[in-house]
Amino acid sequence: MDAFSGQPAVVLVSGGLDSAVVLAMARSQEFAPHALTVRYGQRHGVEVQASAAVARANGVARHLIIDLDLRVFGGSALTADGPVPKGERAPGAAIIPPTYVPARNTIFLSLALAWAETLGARDVFIGVSAVDYSGYPDCRPEYIAAFEAAANLGTRAVEGGRPFRIHAPLVRLSKAETVKAGLALGVDFGLTRTCYDPDPAGRPCGACESCRLRAKGFAEAGVEDPLLKP
Amino acid sequence: MDAFSGQPAVVLVSGGLDSAVVLAMARSQEFAPHALTVRYGQRHGVEVQASAAVARANGVARHLIIDLDLRVFGGSALTADGPVPKGERAPGAAIIPPTYVPARNTIFLSLALAWAETLGARDVFIGVSAVDYSGYPDCRPEYIAAFEAAANLGTRAVEGGRPFRIHAPLVRLSKAETVKAGLALGVDFGLTRTCYDPDPAGRPCGACESCRLRAKGFAEAGVEDPLLKP
Repeated sequence: MDAFSGQPAVVLVSGGLDSAVVLAMARSQEFAPHALTVRYGQRHGVEVQASAAVARANGVARHLIIDLDLRVFGGSALTADGPVPKGERAPGAAIIPPTYVPARNTIFLSLALAWAETLGARDVFIGVSAVDYSGYPDCRPEYIAAFEAAANLGTRAVEGGRPFRIHAPLVRLSKAETVKAGLALGVDFGLTRTCYDPDPAGRPCGACESCRLRAKGFAEAGVEDPLLKP
Repeated sequence: MDAFSGQPAVVLVSGGLDSAVVLAMARSQEFAPHALTVRYGQRHGVEVQASAAVARANGVARHLIIDLDLRVFGGSALTADGPVPKGERAPGAAIIPPTYVPARNTIFLSLALAWAETLGARDVFIGVSAVDYSGYPDCRPEYIAAFEAAANLGTRAVEGGRPFRIHAPLVRLSKAETVKAGLALGVDFGLTRTCYDPDPAGRPCGACESCRLRAKGFAEAGVEDPLLKP
């Protein structure tokens, strides 16, 4: 399938496992995916490099990496403040962990919306899940629905035509189901990077919540993570 | 009043007339205003310089100018594509004019939300109006309410406490009412810049829709625009 055929859609691609599956899903639904990656000052910058490999492997119509330094706001272990927690969470730990980046998905979706509107696209894809996830409020279906409603009131969609749709195809899937869906679509998980705190060579720490969710997904799916093959 | 006393609030400050009034309103309501300006590649970059003067004159707790180049998306006469229209609109012209920047207020509000969340603030101010305005969909009260709903579902507000409130105190005011409200609060409109297409020295063109709305506001308020004084 040619990446330039089909309706254009904007797909938020982080370089992680989830968004790689979402990108393959958008392709399989015959959209012409336009991949958008935000370089926001994440300490796991290796993810941004992975996003280019993931986009290339999927033959996107275009891949745009936009710079927006969220470190100026602070407030997250993923950008600047404090260490990334490792291992199991302590009992009674905060529901929303310190790796939450304030309003990150609202910012990412608003950027995707801007590009979609310019492209004449009405479809935006995001790889959030509210099953095997870290408790981030902006990964839940009720939030996605509310953002979609705002998008349809704050853009040219008010002039008519098909409304904007924010697709979150993983929102009800476990990590194992996401891994299986990706394998069925031929996703090369060896290109993806998930770890919040990789070493200088980009190797995963194996202990942060993101590494642990990934490991659980592959284990429950009964397949080996290609990243961990010797 | 000390800018550091009171509850913190994030105020979107463009350097234009409306947001200067909103900033003064936030001060008068005893918030500690944190001014946020986005340098988004607007052709009227003189506005960003004006934002610093406006913030300084109001004694904000902090003024943050964040860089986010929306020109990568294109699609607007305000950033890159096509000329800024001048004079009266042609009959039957599109309701949303070419100066509309796709999803701009959604992007600005999401950035303000991120900063507010980091500050522990629950109040965001934006100077949109749906009376003497250019027909931008993201300036209407129904859009602001929808964004507020999404903000309260996609942030730490879900954990409890006071919900986020997006204040749009000008949304039902005419431009003349905004000018009068600003004068009552001591706003120095000579510091503000409104023109979409200023000359290289920063002087307003007098013919774009933004200049014409400003002129109408001062005329109906019965006062002279200090910017136009010889």
